[in-house]
Amino acid sequence: MGAEALESYFGGRWSRGQGVETELVDPTNGASLATASARGLDYAAALTFARERGSPALRALNYEERAKLLGAIADVLAANRAGYEEIAIANSGNTKIDAAIDIDGGIGTLKYYARLGAPLGAAKALTDDKPVRLAKAENFQAMHTLVPRRGVAVHINAFNFPSWGLWEKAACALLSGMPILAKPASATAMLSHQMVRDVVAANILPQGAISLLCGGIGDLLDHVGPEDVIAFTGSSETASRIRSHRNVLARGALVNVEADSVNAALLAPGVTAATPIFDAFVKEVAREMTSKAGQKCTAIRRVLVPAALAGNVVEALLARLAKVAVGDPRNETVRMGPLVTRAQQAAAFNGIGKLASAATLLCGGITAPKLEGIDGTKSAFVAPVLLEVARGETSSLVHDTEVFGPVATVIPYEDESEAFALAARGGGSLVASVFADDQDFLAHAVEELGPSHGRVLAVDPSIADAHTGHGIVMPQCHHGGPGRAGNGAELGGLYGLRLYHQRTAVQASSGLLTALQGKSAALN
Amino acid sequence: MGAEALESYFGGRWSRGQGVETELVDPTNGASLATASARGLDYAAALTFARERGSPALRALNYEERAKLLGAIADVLAANRAGYEEIAIANSGNTKIDAAIDIDGGIGTLKYYARLGAPLGAAKALTDDKPVRLAKAENFQAMHTLVPRRGVAVHINAFNFPSWGLWEKAACALLSGMPILAKPASATAMLSHQMVRDVVAANILPQGAISLLCGGIGDLLDHVGPEDVIAFTGSSETASRIRSHRNVLARGALVNVEADSVNAALLAPGVTAATPIFDAFVKEVAREMTSKAGQKCTAIRRVLVPAALAGNVVEALLARLAKVAVGDPRNETVRMGPLVTRAQQAAAFNGIGKLASAATLLCGGITAPKLEGIDGTKSAFVAPVLLEVARGETSSLVHDTEVFGPVATVIPYEDESEAFALAARGGGSLVASVFADDQDFLAHAVEELGPSHGRVLAVDPSIADAHTGHGIVMPQCHHGGPGRAGNGAELGGLYGLRLYHQRTAVQASSGLLTALQGKSAALN
Repeated sequence: MGAEALESYFGGRWSRGQGVETELVDPTNGASLATASARGLDYAAALTFARERGSPALRALNYEERAKLLGAIADVLAANRAGYEEIAIANSGNTKIDAAIDIDGGIGTLKYYARLGAPLGAAKALTDDKPVRLAKAENFQAMHTLVPRRGVAVHINAFNFPSWGLWEKAACALLSGMPILAKPASATAMLSHQMVRDVVAANILPQGAISLLCGGIGDLLDHVGPEDVIAFTGSSETASRIRSHRNVLARGALVNVEADSVNAALLAPGVTAATPIFDAFVKEVAREMTSKAGQKCTAIRRVLVPAALAGNVVEALLARLAKVAVGDPRNETVRMGPLVTRAQQAAAFNGIGKLASAATLLCGGITAPKLEGIDGTKSAFVAPVLLEVARGETSSLVHDTEVFGPVATVIPYEDESEAFALAARGGGSLVASVFADDQDFLAHAVEELGPSHGRVLAVDPSIADAHTGHGIVMPQCHHGGPGRAGNGAELGGLYGLRLYHQRTAVQASSGLLTALQGKSAALN
Repeated sequence: MGAEALESYFGGRWSRGQGVETELVDPTNGASLATASARGLDYAAALTFARERGSPALRALNYEERAKLLGAIADVLAANRAGYEEIAIANSGNTKIDAAIDIDGGIGTLKYYARLGAPLGAAKALTDDKPVRLAKAENFQAMHTLVPRRGVAVHINAFNFPSWGLWEKAACALLSGMPILAKPASATAMLSHQMVRDVVAANILPQGAISLLCGGIGDLLDHVGPEDVIAFTGSSETASRIRSHRNVLARGALVNVEADSVNAALLAPGVTAATPIFDAFVKEVAREMTSKAGQKCTAIRRVLVPAALAGNVVEALLARLAKVAVGDPRNETVRMGPLVTRAQQAAAFNGIGKLASAATLLCGGITAPKLEGIDGTKSAFVAPVLLEVARGETSSLVHDTEVFGPVATVIPYEDESEAFALAARGGGSLVASVFADDQDFLAHAVEELGPSHGRVLAVDPSIADAHTGHGIVMPQCHHGGPGRAGNGAELGGLYGLRLYHQRTAVQASSGLLTALQGKSAALN
């Protein structure tokens, strides 16, 4: 690959911005891979084109037809998979397994929504209830209808999932009849760029249904309107900037946020060491820490364990982490690659330093690990870091500080009420997992953890080997969490279409409602 | 009534703030009625008390028990209704009919949710789907559960509905198991204050379940956390301030907004003058303009009519408006009272002046009407104002400017596509109504208006006399609209409980999910 200048797909044409806003590099060796810039491009015109061309064209199709488009996109991506893996390894420092999570996660989510959308058939609107009477007159009733919003779905994606992040959002928007304008994070935009190139070349989608912004966000948000949806994934700081943007507030564009959170895994009281559930817990924590080098917004950051078992958990985790081969992801024996950029590496070291002021560093550190054949001055490696806080530590640091890398902190607790309270100190998280032998404890844990979490993975021995993992976002499940996680709602089966529809109460004669019902697909 | 100093109910005690933040006056005659101040009160402690005492106490009850509490509140309010009417007339300038909309609307909504909540029975959580398989292993499945949020529902209410606004929000929050802290708008807080006094005195609710803030918002928002919900009704400017508040953003408190919008009523093409549907349209527009002196966030502000019929509509509206007796609402012949304050009066005159720069003023004006027995220097009256824009007028003023008073603008259109486009120029509205003889047109109108509206009232001749009105919010129906209306979602039957619950995906063994399902009530 040469140092290609990535183009944006605006208004049905590929266009290059002026100069270089971002240089994309291989975080394993510092090689320059590509450049990105959207400087000087007409963002307002891109949104207008999507609204005026893409929106009517998509809304002219029914759900079943749009579901077929998703299937066709998935087929194109599957046919070009080999090239994507190569890009993911080079531009994101992914191992093949990391690349598969991103690439196959994207393709799988598209296929899932293609299957889910087909039975919605020829309808062009949804309904989630039945007519109810509103007054003495039996003939005056109300029902709710969900109609596609008429603007653009502006998708501002995170650097860690250039494929999955792109397609999980696109699947729900396109199935709903909304055109998308996707803005991948510049540092890892090569994969999104190549995938959209392939999909555009395959001529699957109507004009204006998909736009891609490779480069900075520029004045994009100055041009969103009340019919648009902004779906953002990334840091809570950037989320706050979007939410408080003058024009976003003034026009009332709908904003959905998935922000990084300080997720917890909880080993139940009463579990004993060296049992299947103990082993499943340790294995999952180590896997989550090192998968994609810890660069998942759902990764385990806090490891809550009974105080009496803390020593055993630490010992077992250190043994596992010591075996994780870190290095060039092109090497088949390597289990963990670098972070995506040296800037991310620096931020991680900074965060580890903060955590180490309130916790004991048990492995890894705040400088680049020395790795055979790797130039530490050109790469972005962070060795796995395990920390442990003392019993009864009251500092908020470990609950507030997210280090976006292979980093977790063991936090001992005395009893279950302390464990649940500690989990909630994350201030709202995307996901918590709980490992227990006892189903009653798990049922109680769901009640206790539910209010502060968007997803709870409750593992008992019967599914210790069968579950899909703490960090993997399944399209069947709600993705989003309260509080600092952003209060968003993505995916979750057909529920995920709600973001891209306006839910409207219709008050009318029963005859009219029956007619509308007949033309709508049921959401529940 | 003397000039009583309204107290706040914080931490289970009635407390008076220092000095006077707001003087509450009778807008008919300028008489001083009461003062409000919460200066110096401990807002943080009030929130903590609600979280630590009210939340666990409410969550210890099941839905059926909490539904009974709503019924008991409604009974207390019904028993004290006469006093409330008197306050509404004095402090809000309400006629008896206006007062009934507010007072009986509040009581009715409480009773509705009491009935709706009872069948949820002994459950303490909700579910809105059934377990689905997630992986090859049949035993690993997912389901969604809705559990009450553990913070406080902070209700920031508008001045126009001191009763309904208080109780429509309270009903959903309390039924969901969340304590409320209600902040009525100071200018008309007397009614909220008296109602909460009566409910507290009746000792119905557990300690901490209800708090009342009579006075300024102070530093309240500095103390909200990730578990809290802020539900605001009022202007989009204030909504933006809440949404961009530093601590609200940093902690991720969930914000729901119902903002004023420039709602439209649409008379279908092809309707002829002096037919039942024409008459029903004119009657509804005139009623909406003058009900509560036009101070409803759902009121009709834009009157879209076929160009050929504009003359007839204007003539019929002017005839109706001329008959509206404006004056002291204590006078039984009076049909419309004053606005709630002289500040609101000034803002309305300012807005009418703006509209008059793009439209022709047909009746009313930008100065106080001379009324028999009324002192124009101490009262807040605005006569009904009808404006009309010229055919093809392109100014955004009439679509953007909300005058919160008895003011509407007639806008002629050429064909249905122009009519729908004009309606959408409101930038997102709470409600639109459509009047037509033809059901096919109405069905099409729902599709076209749905994306930019939270509610559509579609009137055909069969319900011309039976519908509940453009501006009345029925608890069965979604309340909230896209864009400038704030993207909120309140009411709508059990759907209204979602705001106060966290929806969480639970991934677990099928046995655990079956157990959870058995303990939950179905939301759909």
